Amino acid sequence: MYLIHVIGTAGSGKTSIVKVMLDWLEDHEMSAIAVNLDPAVEVIPYSPHFDIRKYVNYVSLLEEGLGPNGAFIKSVDLMLKYVDKIKESIEEAASNYVLIDTPGQMELFAFRKSTFELVKRLNELGKAVMLYILDPSLFVSEGKIDAFSFVSAILLGVSVKIRFKLPMIFAINKVDLLDDYVVELISSWLGDLSTIPFGSEEYAPLVQSLVNAIEEAGGLGETLFVSALAEIGIDDLYAAIQRIVAGGEDYATEEPSARL
Amino acid sequence: MYLIHVIGTAGSGKTSIVKVMLDWLEDHEMSAIAVNLDPAVEVIPYSPHFDIRKYVNYVSLLEEGLGPNGAFIKSVDLMLKYVDKIKESIEEAASNYVLIDTPGQMELFAFRKSTFELVKRLNELGKAVMLYILDPSLFVSEGKIDAFSFVSAILLGVSVKIRFKLPMIFAINKVDLLDDYVVELISSWLGDLSTIPFGSEEYAPLVQSLVNAIEEAGGLGETLFVSALAEIGIDDLYAAIQRIVAGGEDYATEEPSARL
Repeated sequence: MYLIHVIGTAGSGKTSIVKVMLDWLEDHEMSAIAVNLDPAVEVIPYSPHFDIRKYVNYVSLLEEGLGPNGAFIKSVDLMLKYVDKIKESIEEAASNYVLIDTPGQMELFAFRKSTFELVKRLNELGKAVMLYILDPSLFVSEGKIDAFSFVSAILLGVSVKIRFKLPMIFAINKVDLLDDYVVELISSWLGDLSTIPFGSEEYAPLVQSLVNAIEEAGGLGETLFVSALAEIGIDDLYAAIQRIVAGGEDYATEEPSARL
Repeated sequence: MYLIHVIGTAGSGKTSIVKVMLDWLEDHEMSAIAVNLDPAVEVIPYSPHFDIRKYVNYVSLLEEGLGPNGAFIKSVDLMLKYVDKIKESIEEAASNYVLIDTPGQMELFAFRKSTFELVKRLNELGKAVMLYILDPSLFVSEGKIDAFSFVSAILLGVSVKIRFKLPMIFAINKVDLLDDYVVELISSWLGDLSTIPFGSEEYAPLVQSLVNAIEEAGGLGETLFVSALAEIGIDDLYAAIQRIVAGGEDYATEEPSARL
């Protein structure tokens, strides 16, 4: 069983990616389920096999009198209480691919003690990978790329990767909205972060040193462009997941086992 | 005029720090104000000179039918519309110290295009510094420090620092809850991140390479321990701010000018 934790900042498109991935896997006759772990999501465009809102609901906590921020923290922390139920439900499905949709705010999933424990417990079920969805609006504006903001978004992912000690796929979403030359430039940067030009600004040496460090340690690993909306790059995404969890073997070799 | 952007993950204690800093500055007869930029905060324990909730309110957006996540994004993005009002209000106060309290979820403040622009515009008013409040519960559990999670929390701060290109103070909050030996160990790590032991785990080379990179580029800069609740370390915090914004001159030299 492969667990794919889909993370990313608010608005990056996690839920849409889960939807298109689920459709893609089903279209290719693979056994896949999606699990919703966002207690505050309103509309889910796919049918979740497990939905945390059945047990923990942000809006109910608000109505009970918690403030908006407090209710967010509380709802996310409460999820750990139901980890056995979540695991049982996933096991019962006996699917090969488990797509895990995470809270709208990545921080609540990545930087809380409770969710750290939750992820660790879920990963007992199988091989896990993190799929980090990057929103290009964080570093591309009017056709220009801000190199510092780009590295900042990459570092945010790396900080999550080393916290969970899991392999990570860096997927830049909404590629359909980017100019070709922007995609080409980002693509070459992703290939070797140390080639990014930072000019002579005050923090250039720090940023240069950090990207060199990532390259020295083997680079970012799997990086790609996708568009959930335009359904671009989903087969590449599948291939990247396979390279990590199944050592590159494609679905032909692992299906039709009911359980990996 | 000095702007101090107080950031940190949900629950790290930003608002409490703003309160004790404001009290401390006023107790020392310094001219200071606090600005609330969290549209979703329920209770503010200090009197904000400017309160964004007068213009943008998370709960109202919820009531208008936006989902919980959507309302968060919308409320934070809407703040930019009022940047001139915020700036006017700050200018009118003509205070030396402007403490800026930011949204509960740091991600909304640090990794949105709108807030990036907002911070840039606010910083036209004076010298700015980021005060990053770290919650030790992210990396200390039952008296043990998780070295990977510790570096992860540091990297999260660094990713914000390079995005905004601002000097950053790393303040570990809730020190009153930590054992002495934990404080000592973290303290020595902060002094030289490259001395942290990471063992021989898979991601150890990456983490080692990253902390070496930070040290090569001059280290983290100002780091300290505080407790908002127990009011520990607030004078150290003031001193750290002074070293960055005023080159080390203490308040005696800069007061009582009404405006710096």
